[in-house]
Amino acid sequence: MITINYQTIKREDPVKLPENLLFGRMFTDHMFDITYENGKGWINPEIKKNEEMSISPAAMVFHYGQAIFEGLKAYLWDDGRIALFRADQNIERFNKSAKRLCMPEIDPELMLEAIKAVVKTDKDWIPKKPGYSLYIRPFMVATDPYIGVRPSELYKMMIILSPVGPYYSQGFKPVPILVTEKFARAVKKGIGECKAAANYAASLMGQVEAYKEGYTQVLWLDAIEQKYIEEVGTMNIFIQFKDEVATPRLSGTILPGVTRSSVIRILKDWGYNVTERDISIVEIIERYKKGEVVEIFGTGTAAVISSVSRLKYTDFEMKFNDEEAGELGTKLYNEISGIQNGKIEDRYGWITFID
Amino acid sequence: MITINYQTIKREDPVKLPENLLFGRMFTDHMFDITYENGKGWINPEIKKNEEMSISPAAMVFHYGQAIFEGLKAYLWDDGRIALFRADQNIERFNKSAKRLCMPEIDPELMLEAIKAVVKTDKDWIPKKPGYSLYIRPFMVATDPYIGVRPSELYKMMIILSPVGPYYSQGFKPVPILVTEKFARAVKKGIGECKAAANYAASLMGQVEAYKEGYTQVLWLDAIEQKYIEEVGTMNIFIQFKDEVATPRLSGTILPGVTRSSVIRILKDWGYNVTERDISIVEIIERYKKGEVVEIFGTGTAAVISSVSRLKYTDFEMKFNDEEAGELGTKLYNEISGIQNGKIEDRYGWITFID
Repeated sequence: MITINYQTIKREDPVKLPENLLFGRMFTDHMFDITYENGKGWINPEIKKNEEMSISPAAMVFHYGQAIFEGLKAYLWDDGRIALFRADQNIERFNKSAKRLCMPEIDPELMLEAIKAVVKTDKDWIPKKPGYSLYIRPFMVATDPYIGVRPSELYKMMIILSPVGPYYSQGFKPVPILVTEKFARAVKKGIGECKAAANYAASLMGQVEAYKEGYTQVLWLDAIEQKYIEEVGTMNIFIQFKDEVATPRLSGTILPGVTRSSVIRILKDWGYNVTERDISIVEIIERYKKGEVVEIFGTGTAAVISSVSRLKYTDFEMKFNDEEAGELGTKLYNEISGIQNGKIEDRYGWITFID
Repeated sequence: MITINYQTIKREDPVKLPENLLFGRMFTDHMFDITYENGKGWINPEIKKNEEMSISPAAMVFHYGQAIFEGLKAYLWDDGRIALFRADQNIERFNKSAKRLCMPEIDPELMLEAIKAVVKTDKDWIPKKPGYSLYIRPFMVATDPYIGVRPSELYKMMIILSPVGPYYSQGFKPVPILVTEKFARAVKKGIGECKAAANYAASLMGQVEAYKEGYTQVLWLDAIEQKYIEEVGTMNIFIQFKDEVATPRLSGTILPGVTRSSVIRILKDWGYNVTERDISIVEIIERYKKGEVVEIFGTGTAAVISSVSRLKYTDFEMKFNDEEAGELGTKLYNEISGIQNGKIEDRYGWITFID
């Protein structure tokens, strides 16, 4: 049992959300904040005003990149309850990321309690419209003011909240994706499977170049042979072949997505032949030419499911499903968001309530 | 010509440095600070008090790792002049790092002026003892409060200063190094050649494990074949064979060190056969067994030259020069620090003075 210190602020006016919520730009009144000191452990958990923080310019996060995060959502159900989706998975992954980056792990119970406490404090910020939710961003950064390469001795773990609309404001819209050979995101024995800030820094240039060519995202290839597909940087990827739904196996370079694991579980229950394996880009092209690729979709917390409209590799571009949302992707989107919003029975025990 | 706004503080007592300066723990009174805004460019350059900064917890540096830095030193010469060593190289590399991480480049003249301005402001902090200097740490971080993966639209570039003693307080002391096969630091087409915070985050676990086994640093192998030596994370590496001084070529995964390039230049002038090439760890072992490895040393701004006493790969450990500092490493150390401190003529035009 932990005791969280509350320094809540009182709003003069009730929370009023804008009609058109931009993803990740608006934050709620409060945040959770806890400090780690070598020798003392995690100390001073508190809910306080979400405002600018004070930090040394020598803080190690600015110089040596010890920074990890998680992303999950809170959903307001019609009956007034607030639901979290598989929060235990995010907490477990947070601790795995921490370990790999030589950062302190945090008691999962404390972290869950912290998430619940801050969401509850700002529950008026959860949008009441279908498809809307409260995005929860826990993160940990090294705060030791020290200019030398070694793990920090001081950290902050914080949780900030952002009310968000549906990822695709004009409905479930398929995205065009570019397969890049020009850049590498992560390599085996590296930190690619961690939700580390460092991985995103490495991915930006590829993303910017894809955008310039008219693609929304990059599909990364393995950095060793540049042959096997990996992930989309903010999403895992699934290929529906005629007889199989395949997704890259967790080889250490890709994020073990919570939505990915949910999709695998649901598809198996639905009787699909789901495989986690090496999938070469050449295999996709060859089977596409034979008409054996039914659809491709990405999975992630922000969008849940993103159908892929086009996939370009070197000079060859594949189009799927007349660039409309695919059938399986749509079915999975409805199923998972249904569970998240309480419209479909939670037969897997994936929901935790904030009381 | 830029106009830097000065908000200097007045010290009540003169600067007094402790007898035993720890590297990277003490910072001077002032810092340089400049802001970048998309559309406006670099604005508001100022010298101000080095104190905690105010930043949003949603600032992109904490979440997506856009952070780069440089490291160089200012030396106080006997005649009272303050010298910088090859600052143009650090500035050029800073801009290369910025470009790769989709961060804004900065006018090299402005950056040099900023370095000079802040060092001059805090010139009383430059230690007057031989082997001591003022470490200069320019860095840039993404400050946009936005939770979405794309390049930031706001940045801060800051320069902080730290008075430092000789890297080896007990004299020029050789270091034991572990070659790791267990972890990878960087891969071709990634960001390994940038001075990006992200690379250091990825290197910590290897370093911690080496330390546990009694080694000071890790020598990284290429991530693709795990066969060729790359760099030490904070140093480039040189192998003196009987007939050749070899160092890994710049293949995109290792930092193009300023000390590395200075060593190559000096060795060539001294008539050594210097090569930049792929060097496999197996080659080093085989030639070591034949008695053909004379010495191994690392190069970097902090230590200038570090002799390697022992190098361990899997179960095989090599010892060099009875674990004493090697002859060539010592000669290079004396030469380069001599130029930096004004004891040896600057025949390469590597010195810039701060007037």
